[in-house]
Amino acid sequence: MAVGSGELGTLHPVKGISMAAVSAGIKKPGRLDCVVFSLGDEATVAGVFTTNAFCAAPVTVCKNHLAQAAPRYFVINTGNANAGTGKQGIDNALQVCLEVAELKQLPVAAILPFSTGVIGEQLPVTKIIDAIPHALDNLVEDNWLECARGIMTTDTRPKAASVRVDIGGKPVTITGIAKGAGMIKPNMATMLGYVFTDAAIDKADLQQYLDKSVNASFNRITVDSDTSTNDCCMLAASGASGIVVGADDGRFQAALDKVFIALAQGIVRDAEGATKFITVRVEGGAVPEECLSLAYTVAESPLVKTALFASDPNWGRILAAVGRAGIQNLDIGKVAIYLGDVCIVEAGAVAPGYTEAAGQAVMEKEEITIRIVLGRGDCNDTVWTCDLSHDYVTINAEYRT
Amino acid sequence: MAVGSGELGTLHPVKGISMAAVSAGIKKPGRLDCVVFSLGDEATVAGVFTTNAFCAAPVTVCKNHLAQAAPRYFVINTGNANAGTGKQGIDNALQVCLEVAELKQLPVAAILPFSTGVIGEQLPVTKIIDAIPHALDNLVEDNWLECARGIMTTDTRPKAASVRVDIGGKPVTITGIAKGAGMIKPNMATMLGYVFTDAAIDKADLQQYLDKSVNASFNRITVDSDTSTNDCCMLAASGASGIVVGADDGRFQAALDKVFIALAQGIVRDAEGATKFITVRVEGGAVPEECLSLAYTVAESPLVKTALFASDPNWGRILAAVGRAGIQNLDIGKVAIYLGDVCIVEAGAVAPGYTEAAGQAVMEKEEITIRIVLGRGDCNDTVWTCDLSHDYVTINAEYRT
Repeated sequence: MAVGSGELGTLHPVKGISMAAVSAGIKKPGRLDCVVFSLGDEATVAGVFTTNAFCAAPVTVCKNHLAQAAPRYFVINTGNANAGTGKQGIDNALQVCLEVAELKQLPVAAILPFSTGVIGEQLPVTKIIDAIPHALDNLVEDNWLECARGIMTTDTRPKAASVRVDIGGKPVTITGIAKGAGMIKPNMATMLGYVFTDAAIDKADLQQYLDKSVNASFNRITVDSDTSTNDCCMLAASGASGIVVGADDGRFQAALDKVFIALAQGIVRDAEGATKFITVRVEGGAVPEECLSLAYTVAESPLVKTALFASDPNWGRILAAVGRAGIQNLDIGKVAIYLGDVCIVEAGAVAPGYTEAAGQAVMEKEEITIRIVLGRGDCNDTVWTCDLSHDYVTINAEYRT
Repeated sequence: MAVGSGELGTLHPVKGISMAAVSAGIKKPGRLDCVVFSLGDEATVAGVFTTNAFCAAPVTVCKNHLAQAAPRYFVINTGNANAGTGKQGIDNALQVCLEVAELKQLPVAAILPFSTGVIGEQLPVTKIIDAIPHALDNLVEDNWLECARGIMTTDTRPKAASVRVDIGGKPVTITGIAKGAGMIKPNMATMLGYVFTDAAIDKADLQQYLDKSVNASFNRITVDSDTSTNDCCMLAASGASGIVVGADDGRFQAALDKVFIALAQGIVRDAEGATKFITVRVEGGAVPEECLSLAYTVAESPLVKTALFASDPNWGRILAAVGRAGIQNLDIGKVAIYLGDVCIVEAGAVAPGYTEAAGQAVMEKEEITIRIVLGRGDCNDTVWTCDLSHDYVTINAEYRT
């Protein structure tokens, strides 16, 4: 139950970055559930984190450590979010960091912890600590696919993306992985995303590159409008290629956007129960904010999402969602709505040439674009989402069983 | 698939109001799909209407007529919403009004039209006009149940409520009906609601009573966060009891609230696919707005709703929804969350005495209260909702088949 082939293409190694995925037996024995990244001695790291007030313990620790020291290792576990766990949750996250710090003779703040899984249970910290030496002994440069699998929860397939970009005549590599399938409406970041480059980039510049790419990717997707407690997205630059990327390099930003958008779209394609990949595009808005909020209103409407699941061109639901999106002084006489290339609403009512057959033909596709033209300005925005299926209900009703 | 017994109690006739439910064969032959109310010659009428910018043609006509003349008849059809239908939709709604106006020798503005059903198809106006004489010939004082059935669409049972209240030593009657099961997040009104009293009430006062009662009832429910294009709620005072109710009569308002809350809760109990009736109560907020918006955030979270469907005390999802509700400077250390009487979160983390068994016992009930205590002020608010089940997806995926 995922949309598209899931083909990932070549995942280039990133010089200076090594990784391992092991099984700590957190929820199920034998399952890959613990991933470690080693960043090398020169790496700079930027991060964006969930805006959920109940952010998880590892998120709190992560932010503190990132402010104190240059990160050298990421430690990620699945099967337990370590969220809603109070002071003990913080202690547990720190203990995981301490284990790596002692084995590698590093300050504890050089280790960043990440968790994903069920909220409200204490982290089985001993299991993770027991697995860490095995992970550290098996770090290799090129194990993206297994690490992408090692951070999966309800995901049905790994998400990874990789590009090479020419910067001043030299090849820079960017490769990243992400996970997420439910509780997805990132608000500054997705569930978990890790992107690496071998370029040398100043930390402040790196943060700017990350913020821009996240805004164009993870901050433009929704599965179920629920922002997670554990969202984290990290960008690490190992510097190992020796190629320096300065601030505001358009080619680097474009390449980075490409990786981030592929990862974000990969999450939507593999969303819980998804059978369709939907692009909601709003054009002709007066201000950017109304375009984004309208796109989200349509993308999050349960009635639009169930119609998409049923391949039913019940466009009245799209029209109703546009109407309730709270756009001030909307002149519905100027609104047009398209399903793919088919104009369904023109001047605020059903388009003269529209036929149910034409709408049906678009709705039966696996990838559908809903385009809403407001006719009140030059702003536009795009959000990616999926349909709402029986499997979404099944997966989330049975999540803890 | 509805929550509770659906027992309606005695539905008192309202002196001066008569009604009929007939079959116009709009979608299915033989089905009651056309309801007419006659209000008498002295009635005052107040109304609240959807805030959806794509409001349906009958809503536009209704608002115009209400501003022009004293309403004498309501004509309601199901099976077709007459929304997204442009100028022809307006003409069709007017034609229905004209038919009644001619038969009863009234100005056309004395007739208010209402429609509910599928959006985007033209009204089968001939069918409705053909049914009107039959309805007008069969108006009776006491036919609430059949009229409540006659306005149903995906509803599985009729909603009606009735109270008698003593005003200055004399009995005033209030009786009303409503419909709605999906596309329910009223914003000034519900899908369709009609409440009648035999008191004599000035039009401006009536509007105030209506606004207050709607705010305490229909504006506090959500099924799927989708505000309809056709929401209308009307309050008519026939004056036939001869009892005058002045402005701001606390006893009358309380009685009216009782009818409205019963109707609003009736909609949630019969919501599409609902297996649980959920009260989300927020206490200790700094301002009223944050209480209401937090209550809606929790009530609309697909993850909270699927957990409720599964009777799974996965309270981490409630905590995550509280965290993402956008409350400024929320001190999570002061937040407590209760499932029924069971404290699940205290001081921002799992409550010391909490057990899964205690949470499970509450979740297995058919009616559940989620109480969130913010500890930052004296404001509170309550919203009613339901769970998200397989049947919701089935009903809405197959709505037009």
